[in-house]
Amino acid sequence: MVRTRAYLDWNATTPLRAEARAAMIAAMDIVGNPSSVHAEGRAAKALVEKSRGQIAEAFGADGADIVFTSSATEAAALALEGRDLAAAGIEHDAVGAWTAPSLVVDAAGAVTVPDPARATLQLANSETGVVQTLPDGLAVSDMTQAFGKLPLAFNWTGAQMALISAHKLGGPKGIGALVLRRGTDLAPRIRGGGQEMGRRSGTENVIGIAGFAAAAQAAMRDLESGVWERVAQFRNILEKALESESKEIILVGKGTDGAAGSGAAQRLPNTSCIAVPGWKGETQVMQMDLAGFAISAGSACSSGKVRASRVLQAMGHDDTTAASAIRVSLGPDTTENEVHRFAEAWIAQYRKYCARAA
Amino acid sequence: MVRTRAYLDWNATTPLRAEARAAMIAAMDIVGNPSSVHAEGRAAKALVEKSRGQIAEAFGADGADIVFTSSATEAAALALEGRDLAAAGIEHDAVGAWTAPSLVVDAAGAVTVPDPARATLQLANSETGVVQTLPDGLAVSDMTQAFGKLPLAFNWTGAQMALISAHKLGGPKGIGALVLRRGTDLAPRIRGGGQEMGRRSGTENVIGIAGFAAAAQAAMRDLESGVWERVAQFRNILEKALESESKEIILVGKGTDGAAGSGAAQRLPNTSCIAVPGWKGETQVMQMDLAGFAISAGSACSSGKVRASRVLQAMGHDDTTAASAIRVSLGPDTTENEVHRFAEAWIAQYRKYCARAA
Repeated sequence: MVRTRAYLDWNATTPLRAEARAAMIAAMDIVGNPSSVHAEGRAAKALVEKSRGQIAEAFGADGADIVFTSSATEAAALALEGRDLAAAGIEHDAVGAWTAPSLVVDAAGAVTVPDPARATLQLANSETGVVQTLPDGLAVSDMTQAFGKLPLAFNWTGAQMALISAHKLGGPKGIGALVLRRGTDLAPRIRGGGQEMGRRSGTENVIGIAGFAAAAQAAMRDLESGVWERVAQFRNILEKALESESKEIILVGKGTDGAAGSGAAQRLPNTSCIAVPGWKGETQVMQMDLAGFAISAGSACSSGKVRASRVLQAMGHDDTTAASAIRVSLGPDTTENEVHRFAEAWIAQYRKYCARAA
Repeated sequence: MVRTRAYLDWNATTPLRAEARAAMIAAMDIVGNPSSVHAEGRAAKALVEKSRGQIAEAFGADGADIVFTSSATEAAALALEGRDLAAAGIEHDAVGAWTAPSLVVDAAGAVTVPDPARATLQLANSETGVVQTLPDGLAVSDMTQAFGKLPLAFNWTGAQMALISAHKLGGPKGIGALVLRRGTDLAPRIRGGGQEMGRRSGTENVIGIAGFAAAAQAAMRDLESGVWERVAQFRNILEKALESESKEIILVGKGTDGAAGSGAAQRLPNTSCIAVPGWKGETQVMQMDLAGFAISAGSACSSGKVRASRVLQAMGHDDTTAASAIRVSLGPDTTENEVHRFAEAWIAQYRKYCARAA
């Protein structure tokens, strides 16, 4: 029997949506350079601008500026370099590279921001799914993980700038954007032909931009049609199954989800961060991979090695726990069957681990 | 009768090659993030590394490092920022943004480089097609226009670093690379996850990279099969037709092409830079666009406005001539019929211009 693999690592990257694929293939027929004045150039330019408008609509950013970049990582460099903004230790490395981790994180993952105009704060965490309440007037927010998974309008967040990425919501890898309230100053980092209103030079990734826009529109429709409520149900089924097996399991950031006034964290609907202190996340990822499931451990760095999760350490977990975390992240295509199969496979490995540890 | 348009602006950007399209569509099925350790991630990583090898082969850069960027413009920033290298005024704006134009350019477009280790010099000019003889030990060379059009091996150029771009040789827009001799130091500009051996962070543009590799391989095969000799013939047919009509026409950089020892410039096989002093390039581009031909004037900047060519000014042409230049650049798909049709249409407009000027 051929066992189909289950992809449960949607926070790392997503399968390309059918709508994005179709838009990209259509864009392949556009010959011109958007900077050229002839008909072929104008057609390319029109597609870029139409796409920009579609992304603004999906992101609730009408009237804001959208500067296309090659990734949220590049957008972070553009927004943060040389500004010395305050940040928490739970930020992505792309933000951490330009900030000192001076903001306090509580055990539930919530961050306190004394001076929003001089700070950056993510909207949702990639490893735990914990969602922040953004303070008004925040300088920069990494909304990469939230965009497409939460009902969200940039214009209502109170942030001056936001980082977003196509490949977290069903678009292609290699295209992201920095979104700015209109009138915000920005010094370009990549200079030359003066594209993107002089804010980011280089011939535009026309095919990628078309894919980003189509994916953002499809993600918006998914949100409106309640897809993520179903995803949250599957995530909850998964967590219940694992909790019922293991007394020592920690569901990081779960708190008492949704219990009003409890001070507990709100999470993304699709993310589960699971730790069994002592059972290395790296080992679990390999075992699950062999069993046919793609998940991740803490933060995957590009060398293919896995470190103890900085995010969990910043939340006050000890190194053993931080090195024991796995992340399971579901998506619109995830089925209940996949979730059950994963729980079954994980529990089988967990029992072996307990037997070895005993 | 429906008149098919002729795209004669291949130096601005190229139609996507069929091989690149197929490779990109195939890459759309790859789900993983190249940084993920599971099977889906490893498959994405394998495609990126296979593509890197194919580009190295096509570029004659075995053993060199290839750092993927979103454009040659980004590669220029990575190679040049903060180094204060000497450059000539004929460089692309992406190079000019980081250099002072201190190197001397002669009337044929040739640049003298007193200290190659502290200089950057393009291999071929985008507007005139003029090809430079690179001095050994050159710090950085913009090979964007030459790669795919000239027989060329990075390892034999004597340059420490080179900038290249996919969309100039039939690949997609939005992907380029900085090529470095192995062991060359490089400070990253975009930081975060540590991709590209820590030299350029951000999730890789997997689909674009696959398209770049397929296009580079196809371009290599085109070069070997003599496609560009045919292109050069068509370019020469075009120039003869225009010269026979107009006494005042200047074919910039043409010199006495190929005449050994004449000191004349070698040019790319596909490029013709044509000036009729007093007849504005911008006007010609619009007239030709209406007549069904995509060409460009001097340097097209992203605002859609056209300035007097900096390149021609640097070669010693006066402002009137520099504002009168058009560039016609052919490609492997260009037909002899398109060239004849263009010459006919241009001559018709030229006669009208002469009649108005008289």
